[in-house]
Amino acid sequence: MTTESEENSLRLRRAQSVTKAEEITEKENKARKLQFDKPLHKPRDSLFSWSSEFADFTGLVNWGFLMLSIGGVRLFLENILKYGIRVNPLEWIIVLMGYSEGNTHQYPSIILLIFSVVPAVTSLLIEKAIAVDILPEKIGIGLQLSNILFVLILPVVVLHYKGPDFSFVGISTVCMIYLVIFLKLWSYIQTNYWCRKGMKGKMMKNKLRRQSLSAPNWNKLMQAEHEQSFDEDKNEAIAAARLVKYPDNLNLKDLFYFLLAPTLCYELNFPRTTRIRKRFLVKRLLEVVFGINLVLALFQQWMIPSVINTVDSFSDMDPVKITERLLKLSVPNHLIWLCFFYLSFHSFLNLMGELLHFADRKFYSDWWNANNISVFWSTWNMPVHMWAVRHVYIPITEMGYSKVHASAVVFFISAFFHEYLVSVPLQMFRIWAFLGMIVQPPLAVISRWAEVRLGARWGNIMVWASLILGQPLAIMMYYHDYAIEHFKPMQE
Amino acid sequence: MTTESEENSLRLRRAQSVTKAEEITEKENKARKLQFDKPLHKPRDSLFSWSSEFADFTGLVNWGFLMLSIGGVRLFLENILKYGIRVNPLEWIIVLMGYSEGNTHQYPSIILLIFSVVPAVTSLLIEKAIAVDILPEKIGIGLQLSNILFVLILPVVVLHYKGPDFSFVGISTVCMIYLVIFLKLWSYIQTNYWCRKGMKGKMMKNKLRRQSLSAPNWNKLMQAEHEQSFDEDKNEAIAAARLVKYPDNLNLKDLFYFLLAPTLCYELNFPRTTRIRKRFLVKRLLEVVFGINLVLALFQQWMIPSVINTVDSFSDMDPVKITERLLKLSVPNHLIWLCFFYLSFHSFLNLMGELLHFADRKFYSDWWNANNISVFWSTWNMPVHMWAVRHVYIPITEMGYSKVHASAVVFFISAFFHEYLVSVPLQMFRIWAFLGMIVQPPLAVISRWAEVRLGARWGNIMVWASLILGQPLAIMMYYHDYAIEHFKPMQE
Repeated sequence: MTTESEENSLRLRRAQSVTKAEEITEKENKARKLQFDKPLHKPRDSLFSWSSEFADFTGLVNWGFLMLSIGGVRLFLENILKYGIRVNPLEWIIVLMGYSEGNTHQYPSIILLIFSVVPAVTSLLIEKAIAVDILPEKIGIGLQLSNILFVLILPVVVLHYKGPDFSFVGISTVCMIYLVIFLKLWSYIQTNYWCRKGMKGKMMKNKLRRQSLSAPNWNKLMQAEHEQSFDEDKNEAIAAARLVKYPDNLNLKDLFYFLLAPTLCYELNFPRTTRIRKRFLVKRLLEVVFGINLVLALFQQWMIPSVINTVDSFSDMDPVKITERLLKLSVPNHLIWLCFFYLSFHSFLNLMGELLHFADRKFYSDWWNANNISVFWSTWNMPVHMWAVRHVYIPITEMGYSKVHASAVVFFISAFFHEYLVSVPLQMFRIWAFLGMIVQPPLAVISRWAEVRLGARWGNIMVWASLILGQPLAIMMYYHDYAIEHFKPMQE
Repeated sequence: MTTESEENSLRLRRAQSVTKAEEITEKENKARKLQFDKPLHKPRDSLFSWSSEFADFTGLVNWGFLMLSIGGVRLFLENILKYGIRVNPLEWIIVLMGYSEGNTHQYPSIILLIFSVVPAVTSLLIEKAIAVDILPEKIGIGLQLSNILFVLILPVVVLHYKGPDFSFVGISTVCMIYLVIFLKLWSYIQTNYWCRKGMKGKMMKNKLRRQSLSAPNWNKLMQAEHEQSFDEDKNEAIAAARLVKYPDNLNLKDLFYFLLAPTLCYELNFPRTTRIRKRFLVKRLLEVVFGINLVLALFQQWMIPSVINTVDSFSDMDPVKITERLLKLSVPNHLIWLCFFYLSFHSFLNLMGELLHFADRKFYSDWWNANNISVFWSTWNMPVHMWAVRHVYIPITEMGYSKVHASAVVFFISAFFHEYLVSVPLQMFRIWAFLGMIVQPPLAVISRWAEVRLGARWGNIMVWASLILGQPLAIMMYYHDYAIEHFKPMQE
């Protein structure tokens, strides 16, 4: 870095010469002021010059805000002028109800959603059977695994046979709900397993201690322990007594509370709020109602025309056109994603939490400040992140595998679920969503490098860039393949 | 503000209930941790909830930066795809040289630019004549005023007779240079006038003192004064001796230095730098060369197509279309203005300053942080601002008029010069530029109100908004009128 040190010494010399010059000019200035020409010039640097050391550009933040708003309003008006008003609430009702050409008025999505109660209750029954020793534990766990695999496979099978009856929104919703149930039941089964193991361990310990002592000694010891713990903290004991203990948790009320609660991690005693804040509830409810309409309107008015426009440019393989379309698509896509994020993770999950007195509202962390991609993935979706850590990462490391192995497993499970959520509703088993996940680890390495070498700001910019540009790229890929599959044969 | 206080008390109560709940849950948590279900939920709020008091959104600044960049690149690509490459350096040479259809190869712009030396030298000759008492002061000042008025009127007259020989860029340059010379000569005349008045005042004072004392006493006093001042600060006396004094300043070298110097305010002893920083000079020179090409390219490629596109929407009077066009035009216009600002006020004026050892480089202040329009007008163009304060505002207040009167005069002179710079080159005496200036005082009041009532941020946003949206509005008005005048008769 010779040039830098050169520049530094140059700046130093410059500063010194300025100081000397200032000394002289100060005297000259005094003399000049005594003249009659009313002098007003002073030796000083322009603000953009290095030597001025000026760094207050707070106004530029407002400038950016305004330029973004102007761009947004302009895009909105251009869209209205170009396409007219395309928002059609009626169309959405049809889409949501799954009314399509080949419809036999069976509404398979709704039937499947109602049916999702069955595997959940089955899971409870199996747990109960294990708890009361009707079922040997190993067979019980085998049944549980078959049961949750069934949850994952059912939508795929039904879609295969009843495909034309499904709307895209309908099957997407079914896949999402079934995936959530799969994750919740996994957590339910594993947590109950931990409880059984823990109880058994305690009983074994007590048994061993009892065997090593004679009966009277044992009774004395037990009493002493009991009194000691009672004196230690009376309140604590009361609190502990209020807690639900295994196997008292195995009932329908507890299961349905967990299924509805805004979390994927089961535990016996969720932290609870004392009251429902009505103002908070109304706000979240209004957000959900308005938010859904906003997202649907943006989708109809902005997203669909943009996506349709992109297909030709992808077939032509003109790189300038592709880039232009990609950037054009990225804006509505990103805004819809932001709305969707707020709507799902703040409005909807808080609404559910408030209704259910569920006190843990950490559904997202400050992913917008994430300085590398790993941080982003572990902050934007806290329910899934917490599930993956508690039910995959920690168990694997406790089995003696390394952290890298555990991370890799979490990562592949995550990639699989992304593929599941995209490929099943589209009925196209393409590589794009999986590929989108596969590039995350290299991106994480690059963004980590950017954070360390170029500073936190550039790491954060990389995270945003991958978010803003990555999604529309995948969407264009899918839409391109979808359009070729469905429209090309008609043209030929 | 009942709702606010209600909300506050509500928040307080909520906070209290949270604290109580925390106390209970802390104990429960202790007890929960002793269970076997590995609990991980804690009572906590979502970050977007008021009660979380989370406020770190630094990542959103990077988001804004990225969205702006993406929008910019997208617009660039769209422009290339729509219009192809329109940058044509050859065309610019023709435009700059004033080569147009009716051209008689006389290049009147260049002749006028060279001729501008004549009124400057005339001004010097008149000053000299006044200084050596050849010309009575009153007649001299009368001649000077006619001379500078001639400077202002000459381009208008020549354009009237030789109109078709001028290019638009040529006549714009001529108007700008002649206006600068007008302002500089005004300052030159007034400063020399102050010097004469000051000298005369001093002489009168000395004469009075001499009359009141006898000759020997006078001589003693003079000597004592001289010695005292000599002892007081030897260096200061040397510095004072080095200063140029009236009328020694009245020579060609001094005049031409002032005409070339990056300032509009004349003084006898400008602050000087000790050396030319070569690296600095080369940087500024490169900026000027690249900057001019960038501005010209943006103009040909982006601005002209946008302006042409706007005309129809203005004739149709469709408000949605007009707004959309206005917003579309505002982006390239604003970017060109920003480039132009940096190019003129930082690169070019610093280049001139460095070459001429001119030490006062305050050509602009931090107008981007201006919180109301008045601050913007007094910071973005420091040479004109300093000129207006020194040569119009202060003299008027010293004549006994109020500050409001002085401000109004400065404002009308400024409005007149804006109109001059737009109307003369366009040969269209329309009201738009003048109207643009007339709305500045009400805007200043509104932005001042916004600053006080809504906070500094909103004042700053108003300044930016008026800058970004005001200019393209005026441009569209002019272009609309220009197009109607020049193209409509052909169609009919």
